[in-house]
Amino acid sequence: MAKKKTTKKPSGKKRTKKSIEASRKSRDVKTAKALEGLAEGIVKSALSGREPKMDVPTRSAGNTKWNKSKGILQMGSAAQERQLFNMGQARKFMQTLLHGQGINKLIDQEKTLSLRGMYYSGLHTIQGTKEKTFNDQTESDGILEDLEVSIGALREELHVFAKKRGTMVGNITVIDSGDTIDCRKMGSGGYAIPSICEPDVIQFENVEADFVLHVEKDTVWQRFNEDKFWRTHNCILTEGSGQPPRGVRRMLHRLNKEHGLPIICLLDCDPWGHYIYSVIKQGSISLAFESERLAIPDAKFLGIRAKDYEACGLSDDVKIDLNDRDKTRAKQIAEYPWFADRKQWQKEIQTMLRNGFKMEVESLITKDISYVTETYVPERLAAEDWIS
Amino acid sequence: MAKKKTTKKPSGKKRTKKSIEASRKSRDVKTAKALEGLAEGIVKSALSGREPKMDVPTRSAGNTKWNKSKGILQMGSAAQERQLFNMGQARKFMQTLLHGQGINKLIDQEKTLSLRGMYYSGLHTIQGTKEKTFNDQTESDGILEDLEVSIGALREELHVFAKKRGTMVGNITVIDSGDTIDCRKMGSGGYAIPSICEPDVIQFENVEADFVLHVEKDTVWQRFNEDKFWRTHNCILTEGSGQPPRGVRRMLHRLNKEHGLPIICLLDCDPWGHYIYSVIKQGSISLAFESERLAIPDAKFLGIRAKDYEACGLSDDVKIDLNDRDKTRAKQIAEYPWFADRKQWQKEIQTMLRNGFKMEVESLITKDISYVTETYVPERLAAEDWIS
Repeated sequence: MAKKKTTKKPSGKKRTKKSIEASRKSRDVKTAKALEGLAEGIVKSALSGREPKMDVPTRSAGNTKWNKSKGILQMGSAAQERQLFNMGQARKFMQTLLHGQGINKLIDQEKTLSLRGMYYSGLHTIQGTKEKTFNDQTESDGILEDLEVSIGALREELHVFAKKRGTMVGNITVIDSGDTIDCRKMGSGGYAIPSICEPDVIQFENVEADFVLHVEKDTVWQRFNEDKFWRTHNCILTEGSGQPPRGVRRMLHRLNKEHGLPIICLLDCDPWGHYIYSVIKQGSISLAFESERLAIPDAKFLGIRAKDYEACGLSDDVKIDLNDRDKTRAKQIAEYPWFADRKQWQKEIQTMLRNGFKMEVESLITKDISYVTETYVPERLAAEDWIS
Repeated sequence: MAKKKTTKKPSGKKRTKKSIEASRKSRDVKTAKALEGLAEGIVKSALSGREPKMDVPTRSAGNTKWNKSKGILQMGSAAQERQLFNMGQARKFMQTLLHGQGINKLIDQEKTLSLRGMYYSGLHTIQGTKEKTFNDQTESDGILEDLEVSIGALREELHVFAKKRGTMVGNITVIDSGDTIDCRKMGSGGYAIPSICEPDVIQFENVEADFVLHVEKDTVWQRFNEDKFWRTHNCILTEGSGQPPRGVRRMLHRLNKEHGLPIICLLDCDPWGHYIYSVIKQGSISLAFESERLAIPDAKFLGIRAKDYEACGLSDDVKIDLNDRDKTRAKQIAEYPWFADRKQWQKEIQTMLRNGFKMEVESLITKDISYVTETYVPERLAAEDWIS
């Protein structure tokens, strides 16, 4: 494969503990100020006899815009008022302020909480009633997303984390919370990618890799790690256990933006694999407001490709019939604005539909145990045979 | 908490690369020989004009015995014949030999494959027919378990691995495939526990911890890691993302057996949490043949306990009603032979049933973000207030 083309040399000067700590503090001050701003607006309204209310940007497919020049999904400008003196909005209004207060406390104490933890931390029964502040975690999660968009801070900046998934090895050193982790020496297990991968938690050192190979499943990742693919091909190897969580997406995004590393994806040839690629590349509707920090418009899809059944001489045994749901989903994905004008993607999805079957990365094992690591990926990398 | 009581000092002499490599090789030779033995028996029968057949120990609840003195579940002695000239058994007979051959190849090549990989590697259409060797992965997985019990080798010894889950940090150094991983310096992400944790892959060094705190969920683990609980309480911190996979169970087992570390579990107060504990402690029916290498009879259940609603002064908000399925499940678990004569466990389950609700570890967050790490667990450890 050609060397990375857009390499930005790491700045050279190592960030000191002090400067990292300072940037963390300034991030926290910014988030706390935004929260205060929200609260202040409400207090002012109340004191001047006006109705307490706030504007919450609308998180919906209808308010999601495809920014073609940037190549990412973004949130539009539509917003909804949330009023205290409105029977239909009062509950959400109060929930928003309750979680705002909780987050302020987290920032104060320099701690983080999980989404489930936030639900519990805000949970109580309102005095003199049988009304709980939250009926379930879903309600709490939604309010946290409202807060993110309202004050323009990422969930990570609100000190809230989700379940983590995904591992990493390769030619890079990661500084995680002050600990130096050499990803070249992580054995068979690997470094577990944390949920919060912001620059004040995670820094990079000795980024010698030329690219990142991101695979869908941890079992495939293990095959690549066992064959020490990252060493022979000078890369970083990541997996996201299916649809990668935010931590993994943020990690890939930063490696791409800050170090110019191409992100090359090895996913299944099915609508789910295509959707995973789409989210890595352009972002998702539900997290459209974060695309700027998560989406990787120049991510590449190396395989498995619909042509591989013939190109690799695979047997009929690896075919998994597309069901009706797969076919509907494939057509929906083909119509995504960012795929609609990509000839390669139209051809890819059409070929899969014409084949009538899907294929998993593991199907290459029918050729040989290490066919995927020793032949398939190396040949495709050398030929730059991928689509994007 | 009292210091570990059964501490076996690590042997002192560091295992050399050579000795590890030698033990790996001798393990492989042993497994390959057992496979050959299986094949030889069949060939001999065939050549002497007898019917080719093999005995496969029966993996079923009926053939699972509770070994009270060892405190583990074990497989009984029942076995089933698998004959080639029997319409109902020929398919399985051939599948068993096919996978036996595949594993022999893996051992030869010094490689490992995932369960899904094994399915694909054995998959083909039998010449001149439309019959596939395996209809799906479930069929393939079952045959691999048959092979394990037939030749008395663990799946890990057959070079086959499953999806990995679970992470680890704490006062221990792990040597994983020759790489030295200091679990005291693994940042917020942690060391991802591999699927295969056999002694020839994983060795331990500088085991300074007094015990292992094993928590159910990675989000709770993150709270403990962020508060650096393992440092203040000199322990190792692990999580298994729900029911811990074999890799995590094997890791815990080895820390307990080889280094005498007590395994102290922090799980939810619900039938699922109790079942996770039961599997860690006694083994499971489906893996009864591996209990000797996986079960930890002296594992302890620290919490959450049914009494904690009152003991910790929790609010009604944390109550999650037990549904009918929970109640049935709880009664089943109470009747497990290893719980049936444990007064503490009978009381625990009865109290939960009388309460009529379950509670999650996260419910302690309603007290304070760090109540679980700064008050709850430290107090229970100091008082040795757990059940087993």
